[in-house]
Amino acid sequence: MSKVNQMWGGRFDLPPSELMQEINASLPYDRRLYAQDIRGSKAHAAMLAKQGILTSEEEKKIQEGLSLILKEIEDGRFDFRRELEDIHMAVEARLKELIGDAGGKLHTARSRNDQVAVDMKLFVREECEKAVALLKDLRRVLKKRAQENVETIMPGFTHLQVAQPISFGFYLHAYYEMFGRDIKRFENAFDVMGECPLGAAALAGTPYDTNRFFTAEQLGFKAPTKNALDSVSDRDFVLEYLSCASICAMHLSRLAEEMVVFSSQPFGFVKMPQEYTSGSSIMPQKCNPDAAELMRAKTGRIYGSLTTLLTVMKGLPLAYSKDMQEDKEALFDACDTLVLELKVMTAVVEGLTVRADNMRKALENGFPTATDLADWLVKKANIPFREAHHITGTIVKFAEQNGLRLMDVPLKEMQKVCPQITQDVYAVLNVESSLNARKSYGGTAPDQLRQRLSEEV
Amino acid sequence: MSKVNQMWGGRFDLPPSELMQEINASLPYDRRLYAQDIRGSKAHAAMLAKQGILTSEEEKKIQEGLSLILKEIEDGRFDFRRELEDIHMAVEARLKELIGDAGGKLHTARSRNDQVAVDMKLFVREECEKAVALLKDLRRVLKKRAQENVETIMPGFTHLQVAQPISFGFYLHAYYEMFGRDIKRFENAFDVMGECPLGAAALAGTPYDTNRFFTAEQLGFKAPTKNALDSVSDRDFVLEYLSCASICAMHLSRLAEEMVVFSSQPFGFVKMPQEYTSGSSIMPQKCNPDAAELMRAKTGRIYGSLTTLLTVMKGLPLAYSKDMQEDKEALFDACDTLVLELKVMTAVVEGLTVRADNMRKALENGFPTATDLADWLVKKANIPFREAHHITGTIVKFAEQNGLRLMDVPLKEMQKVCPQITQDVYAVLNVESSLNARKSYGGTAPDQLRQRLSEEV
Amino acid sequence: MSKVNQMWGGRFDLPPSELMQEINASLPYDRRLYAQDIRGSKAHAAMLAKQGILTSEEEKKIQEGLSLILKEIEDGRFDFRRELEDIHMAVEARLKELIGDAGGKLHTARSRNDQVAVDMKLFVREECEKAVALLKDLRRVLKKRAQENVETIMPGFTHLQVAQPISFGFYLHAYYEMFGRDIKRFENAFDVMGECPLGAAALAGTPYDTNRFFTAEQLGFKAPTKNALDSVSDRDFVLEYLSCASICAMHLSRLAEEMVVFSSQPFGFVKMPQEYTSGSSIMPQKCNPDAAELMRAKTGRIYGSLTTLLTVMKGLPLAYSKDMQEDKEALFDACDTLVLELKVMTAVVEGLTVRADNMRKALENGFPTATDLADWLVKKANIPFREAHHITGTIVKFAEQNGLRLMDVPLKEMQKVCPQITQDVYAVLNVESSLNARKSYGGTAPDQLRQRLSEEV
Amino acid sequence: MSKVNQMWGGRFDLPPSELMQEINASLPYDRRLYAQDIRGSKAHAAMLAKQGILTSEEEKKIQEGLSLILKEIEDGRFDFRRELEDIHMAVEARLKELIGDAGGKLHTARSRNDQVAVDMKLFVREECEKAVALLKDLRRVLKKRAQENVETIMPGFTHLQVAQPISFGFYLHAYYEMFGRDIKRFENAFDVMGECPLGAAALAGTPYDTNRFFTAEQLGFKAPTKNALDSVSDRDFVLEYLSCASICAMHLSRLAEEMVVFSSQPFGFVKMPQEYTSGSSIMPQKCNPDAAELMRAKTGRIYGSLTTLLTVMKGLPLAYSKDMQEDKEALFDACDTLVLELKVMTAVVEGLTVRADNMRKALENGFPTATDLADWLVKKANIPFREAHHITGTIVKFAEQNGLRLMDVPLKEMQKVCPQITQDVYAVLNVESSLNARKSYGGTAPDQLRQRLSEEV
Repeated sequence: MSKVNQMWGGRFDLPPSELMQEINASLPYDRRLYAQDIRGSKAHAAMLAKQGILTSEEEKKIQEGLSLILKEIEDGRFDFRRELEDIHMAVEARLKELIGDAGGKLHTARSRNDQVAVDMKLFVREECEKAVALLKDLRRVLKKRAQENVETIMPGFTHLQVAQPISFGFYLHAYYEMFGRDIKRFENAFDVMGECPLGAAALAGTPYDTNRFFTAEQLGFKAPTKNALDSVSDRDFVLEYLSCASICAMHLSRLAEEMVVFSSQPFGFVKMPQEYTSGSSIMPQKCNPDAAELMRAKTGRIYGSLTTLLTVMKGLPLAYSKDMQEDKEALFDACDTLVLELKVMTAVVEGLTVRADNMRKALENGFPTATDLADWLVKKANIPFREAHHITGTIVKFAEQNGLRLMDVPLKEMQKVCPQITQDVYAVLNVESSLNARKSYGGTAPDQLRQRLSEEV
Repeated sequence: MSKVNQMWGGRFDLPPSELMQEINASLPYDRRLYAQDIRGSKAHAAMLAKQGILTSEEEKKIQEGLSLILKEIEDGRFDFRRELEDIHMAVEARLKELIGDAGGKLHTARSRNDQVAVDMKLFVREECEKAVALLKDLRRVLKKRAQENVETIMPGFTHLQVAQPISFGFYLHAYYEMFGRDIKRFENAFDVMGECPLGAAALAGTPYDTNRFFTAEQLGFKAPTKNALDSVSDRDFVLEYLSCASICAMHLSRLAEEMVVFSSQPFGFVKMPQEYTSGSSIMPQKCNPDAAELMRAKTGRIYGSLTTLLTVMKGLPLAYSKDMQEDKEALFDACDTLVLELKVMTAVVEGLTVRADNMRKALENGFPTATDLADWLVKKANIPFREAHHITGTIVKFAEQNGLRLMDVPLKEMQKVCPQITQDVYAVLNVESSLNARKSYGGTAPDQLRQRLSEEV
Repeated sequence: MSKVNQMWGGRFDLPPSELMQEINASLPYDRRLYAQDIRGSKAHAAMLAKQGILTSEEEKKIQEGLSLILKEIEDGRFDFRRELEDIHMAVEARLKELIGDAGGKLHTARSRNDQVAVDMKLFVREECEKAVALLKDLRRVLKKRAQENVETIMPGFTHLQVAQPISFGFYLHAYYEMFGRDIKRFENAFDVMGECPLGAAALAGTPYDTNRFFTAEQLGFKAPTKNALDSVSDRDFVLEYLSCASICAMHLSRLAEEMVVFSSQPFGFVKMPQEYTSGSSIMPQKCNPDAAELMRAKTGRIYGSLTTLLTVMKGLPLAYSKDMQEDKEALFDACDTLVLELKVMTAVVEGLTVRADNMRKALENGFPTATDLADWLVKKANIPFREAHHITGTIVKFAEQNGLRLMDVPLKEMQKVCPQITQDVYAVLNVESSLNARKSYGGTAPDQLRQRLSEEV
Repeated sequence: MSKVNQMWGGRFDLPPSELMQEINASLPYDRRLYAQDIRGSKAHAAMLAKQGILTSEEEKKIQEGLSLILKEIEDGRFDFRRELEDIHMAVEARLKELIGDAGGKLHTARSRNDQVAVDMKLFVREECEKAVALLKDLRRVLKKRAQENVETIMPGFTHLQVAQPISFGFYLHAYYEMFGRDIKRFENAFDVMGECPLGAAALAGTPYDTNRFFTAEQLGFKAPTKNALDSVSDRDFVLEYLSCASICAMHLSRLAEEMVVFSSQPFGFVKMPQEYTSGSSIMPQKCNPDAAELMRAKTGRIYGSLTTLLTVMKGLPLAYSKDMQEDKEALFDACDTLVLELKVMTAVVEGLTVRADNMRKALENGFPTATDLADWLVKKANIPFREAHHITGTIVKFAEQNGLRLMDVPLKEMQKVCPQITQDVYAVLNVESSLNARKSYGGTAPDQLRQRLSEEV
């Protein structure tokens, strides 16, 4: 019996096979949860003592032992042996080595099922907070760059076709808004995962006279979970984090895509900070927007993690099944990816060179003030919008065929299409007028944008 | 020009090809948004009048025209022609037929880009509310069935192996908790999507003196969106609905899986209501849990919709791109699927036959009170939990080899393994004792469960 | 008993509820399989007669009845009632109406489980053939356009940064190759799904003396499947089709993305055929590449279908479970999407306007012959490639800082960086030389490309 | 300039930032490709020498240098520094240290773009072969266990409801068939990825007089790729591997699910080999089927990798973009997961204990011979199948209400429902008769199964 598992091997004749250890042991990756695991154990021990289940003597030993283990791990002196299976057993085994019998009492009134649930929830809550903090950094930089570029005129696109003049500041502010929603989502997720599963024990609660409100509070939760079976079966909080991360990564991929397109030579709108580009092993002229491409691509990785866990959880019977162990690597990878992406994006936005000349040049090719012409017809000539749209379309066709910008089409030609047009019209055909005119709430006009930017942190 | 598009064809020489119409026209499915579209147009017209952009005469005509169209559609008398592309143009074209020139003025100071954004957001908000209402129905039924089964004893499983005795009521209450979190998520999503995009126009705002706070309020939003570019580029709200729906569908799939397993003959724990089963074309004895299987499977469908839209939005440049039209069918399908699943699950849970005899029989095969024995050793013989676990494992091995239940193992045999065991131990080895003992907050003990059930609506 | 199901309701007291019919009935969509279903039934009837299980009289009636039903359906005169559940029962019920008792004998020695398996397999095999045929059309057009553009010079990009000169024909030929692999994949998939499941019956085979080789051959399969349980549990063929379709859709999305980028004003490389673009309801100048955007987006839809079915099949116990009914809508949608995309892409490529002037202009901004300079240093000055690369990088930096093209950098300046450079170098710095030089197998040089294009159909 | 990249930094003023190195460097994971990278470089060097581009002296140095590096890496003595970015540059930099200038010549006529493409393709081809070999092992074990259990009778299920008697050998043979299709798919994928991209250079081919047929043959490919642009843009082969792996993992998940269900106490059909189970930290009686659960779950992980790369490749412009670097970790994880799963499944199937007694007991509860009764009515009483089905359903209902097995229903009672029934009927109502009767090709009858098993390796 010497080789069977010391934690659960009482009824076993054989230890896990080599292959089984390879597929089963989570210690190689769940050791990352050591801080959460020890924090949870300390709260549990304090509660057991408070309730008289441990003596204060025993508790003291346990607390000291756990503190020592925490230090050993942080100093890199802890021996993570795969046969200990997971971080919970690794810590507990070491605790027994350090403090003897009292170590065996720590696991009273709990199970690995609620233990891993609380560890993971603590971890995900921290990752939510981390994401929020990094999103705030990114928004700070976006705001700063937006403020600098309130009047930097560029073509606004729809369908990647020139649409109307906007400012580069307005463009950045759009992302400011998106990342603002991401913050709300992470905060909401944090709130929904506010109940503490510790003390649910294996699946049914425990006969010990525990105080779950105490541990919940110690660990920063709002309250304990209300059903033990649900507590150990639940990974909603991981999925909700991954959903928020996926939407956020999607936003990052859009900004990254535009960085790639906008920094290609035909556009030339922006230049990536050089220290976020790289060269080619064969083409000496290259200066590639690698950081942007990687941020665009890593979206796939986060979507992949979401797919993984949605698949794992589908149709899983209650309560804990070993399938749920597959939540960890997918989550860790998504967290690290998101954190890295947010940091890189913040640095790239901060260091982006804006090439206002190229932006303005691009505007000229796209009749960006056609809508202004149509609007002028509505306002000044009292023509219904749909008819004004048609008249403008005809004038655009003439301009395009003759290689002219709208403002260069002679009045005479315009009047052939619509006799009500007068010299006044030219005042709305230049891009600055167009930009300044869009003063509606949330519009691109500099004054409007300044107001919006002034409202938030 | 007669065949080019009447809404936007001014500069075009050719109408869309037949194939283009097939891939491009969204009318066959976005007609479903007619009510939202008309509602949005009515609010917009009211605002234009309030701001003096329309005369009250014009507004009156528009309002009446729109009301008429609404009625035509609801009466099935509306002619949806594919060449009108989408619901927005179909309604507007009909409006012009009905009221003439004034109809052409409705589109002042807006664009299809903000129009479809507001239509979709109104739709998704309603679907969030619908999901919440149906989840409440389901919880009501779960609670009722849980209350009826507070003392119906069954094996609680982990790894689908018998773990500890729980009650069927406790089991149902776990799902009650899950669906409670789903409600919170849908409510949070509803809140995040609280800003109204109408009036953002194409992408940059508008030169008209609009009042977006007015339309936002009319349509039940908290405020207008703050950046026009973001307003027309944003489909976060669809993704957030789909994320919530995916997690909810995952919950449904777990309950459905257990219905399939629990109603198989070897378990026989429950019997599906017959009107939710079906027979076999070849095997006359069959009575298959089709409804449960379909709910388990439809999870894939909702995940598929989420994958679809996450993929569509990845790397999409601002502002509106036609790609975003692909948000609709995926969303509609997910909404309909979720609604149907929630209704069916509510009916199935309501009509489920509980076979307490089979539940109890199954308990006997799994040594479900082994933990109680270990706990007894801790409490009564003051043995550290880990050692108690080992002792119990050895006794279980003996019982298994001799075909005995734990409570049938002679005291003498137990004492061979651990001399401190006394006759008292048998009091904790029956399943009722075990159930009643788990009184910790959120535990399965009947009193505890009754308290939890009494707290919520 | 009058209302319970006539096909399988013998032991039932209650008919399916309204909600159950809604979630359970597949007839609204599986009616699409009518031709496959009838074809399978005809082969089955012929086999039963051949084996003496049906009289030739009975078979004749069945064959005539089935032919009549086929015609009724194709003429739109067939009454699809939802309570008949699925296409199999709808056809069989009608057959009994038409020919009486003999109709009831058709289902001998088969089950709906093998029937739906064979229907689906026939359907998917046809869709594989359809995809192959459409891919061949697309390749034909790509080849034609490539041949026209063997010498149309454009910038080749990596990282969307100008890399080296290539021809537009070479660019199109890259897609020709991709779609060639797609053909191979669909053909391989067709081959793997070459075994006929008909006759597997419910899951275990049948006691009747059937001849499955006969039906397999009649239906165009290579052989019957070898294990009845697998036959009715298998949906690999649907997943394999969806995998092939996903990869193919990914290719389409790349070409579509480039159409969007290449037709944006700053690039201006191509112009979409006008009948595949559309305008804006508000911006009169717009001519948007909608068809390309939709093809880019619909990739998400096909990925979504793949996700759906992968999820459905995960962890499904053998044999048939009702979950598998969810294979149909996802498949149908993916098939229709792929077919439409392939047709549209073929038309768009055919009608694409190439703007060689803009392509050439874009080349000038990117130092596209820097690699040629490095290669010249290797070949003519015997400098190791890595050093040559470094020298060239330095010259590029000088050119960029002085607003020069590489070919405009004075010899003197080049020699400052590397004294071995001589006047000869300018011969390799123009883009035509660069293009013509890349004659390695599969390179962009016109002669090389012409050879590759001449090799295949 | 000393700190900018030595491989491509000629035109750069700044080295990559710390954060950039973190997001950009692939060396921490692509070092895994070292053997493929060196193998490709050796073939390339041989070709360059053969074509006179390198002297035989130079080649010799390069070959020796590369061999040395291979050994250094395999001995763990190689210094992987992150600033070298990737395995290609790490090897090349070391080569230059070892052999000086000649090392700089190795990169002539190629680029990292074709280099990474060939490394990856070599890697994936090996993984295809590895998967095929492991699938053959698994099939060998399945066949052996099937042969042992040709007559072990068990309930065949549909909808997890008892359907008809089958043998456990027949059940295992179903998986034998599935894994056989997986082998075909991996072999087909291997074939489609048979063209060698090496020599495509950056994207356009090269002006050197290379011989790509030579390198293709050296590396075991059928031929070189035909278009250089496609060669460096293509990751189809990774996606095809991931598609095959996903379908294979789905098969594994089904078998794993059944192991979990079949080894739960109410079923008790099989017992997992103890060394592939584990115990509980709290419940001493537990012996959980962890290995099966993990195989079920890891399906999600492989689906996740597929999702990741499908997302990454969506809409990516040609040629190489840095996004494509994200193919590696997803692939590596999927390969390792599949390999591990296949090994574990082989061991688990080999060690599975079959509990024939429990299988037979379960058969009794499900009227498994009802179809035999219906078939008897067709054959012996000449009743159309549909009517026979109805008669049987009525008899089943009687049996169920009276707690009888079908074979225990008195003849008199049967005759009440259908007077044509005679004493003979009982001969088909026992499960052995039923099993033996299903002799159709691919059916469960022992003789039939033995024949099928004898046909294949």
